[in-house]
Amino acid sequence: MNLDTLVNSIKTYEGITRKNFIKGATKILDDTYNIAGRTALGFGDDASAIDIGNDKYLLMAADGMWGQLMEGNPQWAGYCSVLVNVNDIAAMGGIPMGMTNVISVNDPELCNEIMIGIKEGVKKFGVPMVGGHLHPDTPYLALDVSITGIVGKEDVITSAGAEVGDVVLVAMDLDGQQHPDFKLNWDTTTHKTAELVQAQIMAMNELGKKHLLTAGKDVSNPGIIGTLGMLLEASEVGATIELGKIPRNSTVDWEEWLKVYPGSGFVLTAKEENAEECIKILEKVNITTQVAGRIIEEKLLNLTHQGQERTVFDFNKDMIIGIKEEIL
Amino acid sequence: MNLDTLVNSIKTYEGITRKNFIKGATKILDDTYNIAGRTALGFGDDASAIDIGNDKYLLMAADGMWGQLMEGNPQWAGYCSVLVNVNDIAAMGGIPMGMTNVISVNDPELCNEIMIGIKEGVKKFGVPMVGGHLHPDTPYLALDVSITGIVGKEDVITSAGAEVGDVVLVAMDLDGQQHPDFKLNWDTTTHKTAELVQAQIMAMNELGKKHLLTAGKDVSNPGIIGTLGMLLEASEVGATIELGKIPRNSTVDWEEWLKVYPGSGFVLTAKEENAEECIKILEKVNITTQVAGRIIEEKLLNLTHQGQERTVFDFNKDMIIGIKEEIL
Repeated sequence: MNLDTLVNSIKTYEGITRKNFIKGATKILDDTYNIAGRTALGFGDDASAIDIGNDKYLLMAADGMWGQLMEGNPQWAGYCSVLVNVNDIAAMGGIPMGMTNVISVNDPELCNEIMIGIKEGVKKFGVPMVGGHLHPDTPYLALDVSITGIVGKEDVITSAGAEVGDVVLVAMDLDGQQHPDFKLNWDTTTHKTAELVQAQIMAMNELGKKHLLTAGKDVSNPGIIGTLGMLLEASEVGATIELGKIPRNSTVDWEEWLKVYPGSGFVLTAKEENAEECIKILEKVNITTQVAGRIIEEKLLNLTHQGQERTVFDFNKDMIIGIKEEIL
Repeated sequence: MNLDTLVNSIKTYEGITRKNFIKGATKILDDTYNIAGRTALGFGDDASAIDIGNDKYLLMAADGMWGQLMEGNPQWAGYCSVLVNVNDIAAMGGIPMGMTNVISVNDPELCNEIMIGIKEGVKKFGVPMVGGHLHPDTPYLALDVSITGIVGKEDVITSAGAEVGDVVLVAMDLDGQQHPDFKLNWDTTTHKTAELVQAQIMAMNELGKKHLLTAGKDVSNPGIIGTLGMLLEASEVGATIELGKIPRNSTVDWEEWLKVYPGSGFVLTAKEENAEECIKILEKVNITTQVAGRIIEEKLLNLTHQGQERTVFDFNKDMIIGIKEEIL
């Protein structure tokens, strides 16, 4: 494996580059995130947080499924629409309460397949799909799902809390398989019991409640390194990561592994003294977790391997999402 | 005006007939609405309700914008995406907390216009757009918005509570204009202050808190009569309505008026003794409200005018949405 090839492959991965467009779109809303005076976290995190009193935050997130996924396997797309949304709430330390969806479809058969996939997801993750909207006559196929969760005000895990000297934990469920149609989907849930899958979500809630993390994100389209990059960007810090310390299922090569969208995977930061307890809590639910690096002051994401070091992102000039986390 | 022509025009209105497709799609999820044991209201209402403790329900709804609207006027579509969602929460007696969106677009200029419209809506209705997802490379243009609100458990206004003998109130803000591009959009908000528009939303919250209604819905795509039909379907009752008692801005003819999507319009039912107080509360915020009919046992929606009576819907054989409200 050549480190330069790997770094270049991460930097140019579509899952990262297509995030860039978001900046201009959200900038317009900049001064209205807190229009009602209740918004605690605006754009830039896995979910936004709204103060609803009783020491609770509402967490809200939304995700649209990629067209390729919808056309290639609508049932799997339906399932994934649940998975990605639930993980957004888990990443914030929250408990998912319910989802809504908007489906655009013109073929009842396809619509059926999507709904079957959604139902499998609902049963696996234990989060109901309670409403939605159906466009029965669109020339295109689309599925958008939004989720609402609840988290204790003091327990919320954000992307923006990483501090210099913190350790970086990479947490990945290694018991999985590459989806036959989509090799970058690291499926860790379909073969597991609903009980274990839901326990994985609740493990993040436990980490939040125990205040063991300084920051966290679920690994999504940008992959492990890209997701860490988003966390560093939000926290306005850098990190140095040792490739070999990233938990990996050895049936998948590094280039693919660093791009997978996992069923259960998180990038976390913590004070060094809390790392061991975090690892224990996650490993109890089959999420293999290792200290893979450390937060540094320079706004760089450095990857080291066998004595070599390369800079993957220089946040002084690169940007992934380009939005400063709004903590209001 | 010919009553038969009018009735036929309502029955065949696209805003009503395109609702039919929903039934099959949601049936698949039938036994999973309450998978976590917290769902109080599933599909079939303006918003779903989830018990979050502290005597509060989360209200969740989602809406996708029609393609015609998106293509014809993306800025207006953005504005309307806020309006329709806020009205869904208002119709349940709730207070809107926040929204998320999924935008599918491939032209930054168009994306910009949508966001400008959303921002106008956010400022007018005072509800923040806190997150979302952007598909920057779709061959189609779409905007889906979801909303979460909060309502007191005892104060929620559902579609399913209308009882035989209740009066039917039709509540419409008459101070408006037909949108120049979309004559069936009865715009009552763009020219009003944010304060008054938000007071209209809170008037529904007041009706909920005071337990003055037995059922209610916001007038949406199916128009005044179609929306009432959905309420009757959910409540498993019928109604007889006097056309001339429906508040109307006389610049719009009846056929159009009964199809408009208003900025602020509701179909409500109440015990007769509470009608006057409801009317007072709504008229204080410029929503003209009249007793327009009465709930009957036969599952028919009858429209009367100048001594003539016609049946618009016979729920023994017709269906609008075809979903029984899920009260869990």
